[in-house]
Amino acid sequence: MKININADIGEGYGKYSIGNDTELMPLIGSANVACGMHAGDPTIMVRTVKLALDNGVSIGAHPGFNDIWGFGRRQIRMRPIDLEYLVTYQIGALQALAASNGARVTHVKPHGALNNMAHDDLDYALAVGRGIRAADRELIYVANAGSQMTRAAEQLGLRVANEAYVDRIYDDNGKMASRERDDAVIHDPEQAARQVLGILEDKALISGSGKRIPAEVHTFCIHGDEPTAVPVMRKVRERLAAAGIEVVGLPALFGRDSASSMP
Amino acid sequence: MKININADIGEGYGKYSIGNDTELMPLIGSANVACGMHAGDPTIMVRTVKLALDNGVSIGAHPGFNDIWGFGRRQIRMRPIDLEYLVTYQIGALQALAASNGARVTHVKPHGALNNMAHDDLDYALAVGRGIRAADRELIYVANAGSQMTRAAEQLGLRVANEAYVDRIYDDNGKMASRERDDAVIHDPEQAARQVLGILEDKALISGSGKRIPAEVHTFCIHGDEPTAVPVMRKVRERLAAAGIEVVGLPALFGRDSASSMP
Amino acid sequence: MKININADIGEGYGKYSIGNDTELMPLIGSANVACGMHAGDPTIMVRTVKLALDNGVSIGAHPGFNDIWGFGRRQIRMRPIDLEYLVTYQIGALQALAASNGARVTHVKPHGALNNMAHDDLDYALAVGRGIRAADRELIYVANAGSQMTRAAEQLGLRVANEAYVDRIYDDNGKMASRERDDAVIHDPEQAARQVLGILEDKALISGSGKRIPAEVHTFCIHGDEPTAVPVMRKVRERLAAAGIEVVGLPALFGRDSASSMP
Amino acid sequence: MKININADIGEGYGKYSIGNDTELMPLIGSANVACGMHAGDPTIMVRTVKLALDNGVSIGAHPGFNDIWGFGRRQIRMRPIDLEYLVTYQIGALQALAASNGARVTHVKPHGALNNMAHDDLDYALAVGRGIRAADRELIYVANAGSQMTRAAEQLGLRVANEAYVDRIYDDNGKMASRERDDAVIHDPEQAARQVLGILEDKALISGSGKRIPAEVHTFCIHGDEPTAVPVMRKVRERLAAAGIEVVGLPALFGRDSASSMP
Repeated sequence: MKININADIGEGYGKYSIGNDTELMPLIGSANVACGMHAGDPTIMVRTVKLALDNGVSIGAHPGFNDIWGFGRRQIRMRPIDLEYLVTYQIGALQALAASNGARVTHVKPHGALNNMAHDDLDYALAVGRGIRAADRELIYVANAGSQMTRAAEQLGLRVANEAYVDRIYDDNGKMASRERDDAVIHDPEQAARQVLGILEDKALISGSGKRIPAEVHTFCIHGDEPTAVPVMRKVRERLAAAGIEVVGLPALFGRDSASSMP
Repeated sequence: MKININADIGEGYGKYSIGNDTELMPLIGSANVACGMHAGDPTIMVRTVKLALDNGVSIGAHPGFNDIWGFGRRQIRMRPIDLEYLVTYQIGALQALAASNGARVTHVKPHGALNNMAHDDLDYALAVGRGIRAADRELIYVANAGSQMTRAAEQLGLRVANEAYVDRIYDDNGKMASRERDDAVIHDPEQAARQVLGILEDKALISGSGKRIPAEVHTFCIHGDEPTAVPVMRKVRERLAAAGIEVVGLPALFGRDSASSMP
Repeated sequence: MKININADIGEGYGKYSIGNDTELMPLIGSANVACGMHAGDPTIMVRTVKLALDNGVSIGAHPGFNDIWGFGRRQIRMRPIDLEYLVTYQIGALQALAASNGARVTHVKPHGALNNMAHDDLDYALAVGRGIRAADRELIYVANAGSQMTRAAEQLGLRVANEAYVDRIYDDNGKMASRERDDAVIHDPEQAARQVLGILEDKALISGSGKRIPAEVHTFCIHGDEPTAVPVMRKVRERLAAAGIEVVGLPALFGRDSASSMP
Repeated sequence: MKININADIGEGYGKYSIGNDTELMPLIGSANVACGMHAGDPTIMVRTVKLALDNGVSIGAHPGFNDIWGFGRRQIRMRPIDLEYLVTYQIGALQALAASNGARVTHVKPHGALNNMAHDDLDYALAVGRGIRAADRELIYVANAGSQMTRAAEQLGLRVANEAYVDRIYDDNGKMASRERDDAVIHDPEQAARQVLGILEDKALISGSGKRIPAEVHTFCIHGDEPTAVPVMRKVRERLAAAGIEVVGLPALFGRDSASSMP
C-alpha cells in the first residue's frame, strides 16, 4: 500500500522564516511550495525546490491570495476569472524556477483562506481548477476529501488527490475543527499516528465526537508551522513503516515516476 | 530590410490603467508585457497576450523591480542572485498565462530602473541574462545598443536584439538624454521618423549635439505612455513603409516564425 | 439650510491617476482622502490636502483595506481588532501630513468594500468606529443612512453624518442598487439634482421602484471616478443654490468652523 | 552620568516574527518601532507600544523604505520630497496608535538602507529630517555620530542624539564594518561591554584597526535580531551599573521627562 504525506514548505518571506523546512522535508513525500503571494519569494522558492530534489520529494505549487500581511489566511472576495489567472500566474512562476533547477511541478494545493473558500464554494473550486488546468493538464489537484474541490477537479477532468490531516481533528461535517477549540490541533505523536492509520483502515474520517465520514484518502497533510510537526511526523512514519505502508510522491500514486526531477 | 518596433504594454494595475494599448498594438511588432511586479496583474497580462495575438505581435516579458508605487522606476540595490530569480519568476508567470492562450513568450526586456542599472552595471546585466536563460535559452534579450546588457547576452550565449529609441534623444555617451532636459522626449512625428530612418541609414545613433555613435539596431522602442505615441508611430510606420522597410516580430529577425502563436 | 457634499479624492497611486480631482474639488464641501492602503501615497496625500485647503474644502480620512490591486473593493475578512488598528494607522498618517500643511482632519469615511461590510456588519462598523475614536474623539463618522455604521457611531458616542448618494439609485432596502443593474449609476445631471433635492424635501430615500425609506441626510456623496461627475455636480450645485441650500464643510453642520485650516 | 540604549523593536509582520522583543525591552532605554513599511503592522505597533510603556522605555518611530521583501535593507533611490512625506506618514501612523494607548513618540531613527543612505547623502539626511520636523519639531533625530544626519539635524534645528553601536566594530572612517567581515558583529558580551565603556571614556570610536575617531555619543544601538542580543545587553547593563552610568530614555538626555506616557 502506498500513500502520500504533504506539507506546506518555503513559507518564509525575505528575511522572515517560518517552520522547520530542513528537518521536515525528509519526512514527507510531497512539498507544497509557496509562490510569492501569501509567502515565499523567488529566492526561497529556488531554495525549496533544491531541498525537495535533494530529498526525492515531489514538488507542488501552493498558490494563495496576494496577502503577505495576512499570510493568505484572510478570506478575500474576488471574481473567479481573476482568481483563475492568479493561480496560473503562481504555478507558472514556480514551473520556471523549478525547470531551471531540473525539477517538475506535479501537483497544486491551494493555501489557507483560498483552500477554505474553495472547500465550500464551487465557483472558487472551479476557478482554482481552471487555473491549474491552464498551467498543465497533468497537474494533480490536491483537494480536501469530500469538498467542492474534488467535485471541481472531476468536472474539469483533472486528477485529484483526496487529502486528510495528520494533526487536526475533524468536526461532524468532515471539516477541520476550528482552531478556537482547544483540541483542534493534535500535538501528541501517538494520537496523530492513530488518526492516520485509522483513516486508512476505516476508509473514513472519524470526527472528534466519533462520527464516521467515509473518505478514500490519498494524501495526508502535516502543518509544518506547528512546533510539534517533526516529532509527530517521525512517529507517523514509524507506524506507517511498521504497517507496511510506503510513503511516496504524489505522481507515484497515479502510476507515474514519483521523482520531480525532469526526464 | 526588416526591423522591429517594440513597446511596453499592459502597464495598468487593477483598476488603474495607463497608455493606449488598443491603439498602439497594431502599430508595433513586439509587445513587452508587464509581469506583475512594477505593473501588470494576471488579468491584465491575459488581456494583453490576447491583444498581441489578435494583432500578430510577438510577445515578450517585461520584468521590473517589485515596486508598484515607484512603477519600477526607482533604482533598487539587490543581490544579483535574488534579481536573477526575480526575473525568472516573472517570465515563468507570463509563459504560463501566454501558453494557456496559445501564445509563446519570445523575448525579454527589463523595465525602467532595472533597464537603466543593467545598462551600466555588468553584474545586473548578467543577473537579468541568467534569469532569462533559466526560463528559456531561446529567448531574445532586448538590450540598449552598446550597453552592458549586450555584453552580458554575448557572454551567456543568448541572442540579443540591439535597441534604440523612436522618441528619445541621445546624449554623447549613447544614452537617452535625461528627462530633465526639455527636449528629451520627441513629440514631433516627423522628427521621430527622421531619427529612426537616420539610425538605420547611418548605422549609428546621433546625439542631440550631433555626435555619431556607431550602432547596429534591430528594434526601436516607442514609449506608450506618451500622449503622442500613436501619432508618432503612425508617421514612423508610414515612412518605414515608403522606404521599403518591413516591421516584423522579433523572432523573424532571427530567422524564426514571427508569430507568437504556438505551433 | 446647510448640507454637505463629499467625494473620494486623491485615489491615484504613484504614476497612476484616477478621477479629476482638480475640477471636482471646487464643487464639493468635504474631501475623503485615500490614505495609502487601497490608493493614495504620501505624496498624493499632501497634494490632495493642499488642493482641499485651496478650495476651502474640509478634509477627511478615507481608510480602506490594504489592497492596491483590488482598489479596496475586494471584501477581506479580518479580525475586528486588526481592522481597528488599521483604521487608526491610516488616520494618523493623514493627520500628520495634514497638520504639517496647516490642516486638520475632521471626518472619516471608510472606503469601498470596507464601507460595504461595515454597512451590514456591526462588528466591522464598531471596529471602524473604535479606530476613529482612537485617533480623535471629535472626528465625524460619515455613515450610510440607516446602516450599522450609524448605530456603531451612536454606541461609541461619535458624531455621525448620515450619507446618501448623488449619483446612485437605491434598492428597496435603502442600499445602493448593484452596479450590475444598467441604471445603477445616475449620469444625467437633471436626474441627480432631482434625487438630491427630493431626499432633502421628503426626508427620505426613494428607491428605483418608488419605495420611500425615511432618512435624515447630512451629506451627499458623488463618485469622482465617474466621467460625468463634474457636469453632474455643476447641475446639483446650481439647483441647490436656486433652492437656497448652502453647501458647507462637515464641521459646519455640527456648529464648528467649517475650515480645515488649523486655528 | 546618563546614556541611552536603543534597539529596533516590533519588526515582525503579520504571522512573521523576528527578534526577542519581550526579553530585550527591559534592557533598553528607547525602542525604535517599525511603522509598517519595511516591517511592523498596525497590530504589532500597538503591541510594541504597550510593551514599551510597561517597561518605562521611550518610544520612537523607525521609518524605512516601503519594502517588506527586502526588510528595508535594499537601497532605493527616490526623490527627496517623496522620502520626506514617506517619513512623516510613518511617524504619524505611530503617533496615532501611540496616543490612543496613552503614549508619546519622542524620537525617530531611520531604518536599514535608509539609515545607510542618509549617513552619507545630505539630501537624504535632510529629507528624513524634514519629514521628522513636519510631524513634530520636538522629536529627537537619532543619527550615527559624524554622519550627514547629524549635519542635517543641525541645519533644520532639530535635537540630535549621536549614536554608536554596542555590537558592531567600526572601520577607519567611523562607519560600521561591513557584515562581509567575519568579525563585523560582536557576539562576546565582554567585548561589547568594553566597546561601550571605551567609547564613553575616550569620547571616541575605536576602529577595528585601532584608529581613534572622536565622537560624543548619547545613545548606543543593540541589534535585536542577533541571537546574542540579550546576553550581550545583560553584560553591558551590568558594567554600566558598576561604572555608575544610568540608562535612561532619550528625552531624559535632553532634560525632559523620560517617560513616554502622556502628561
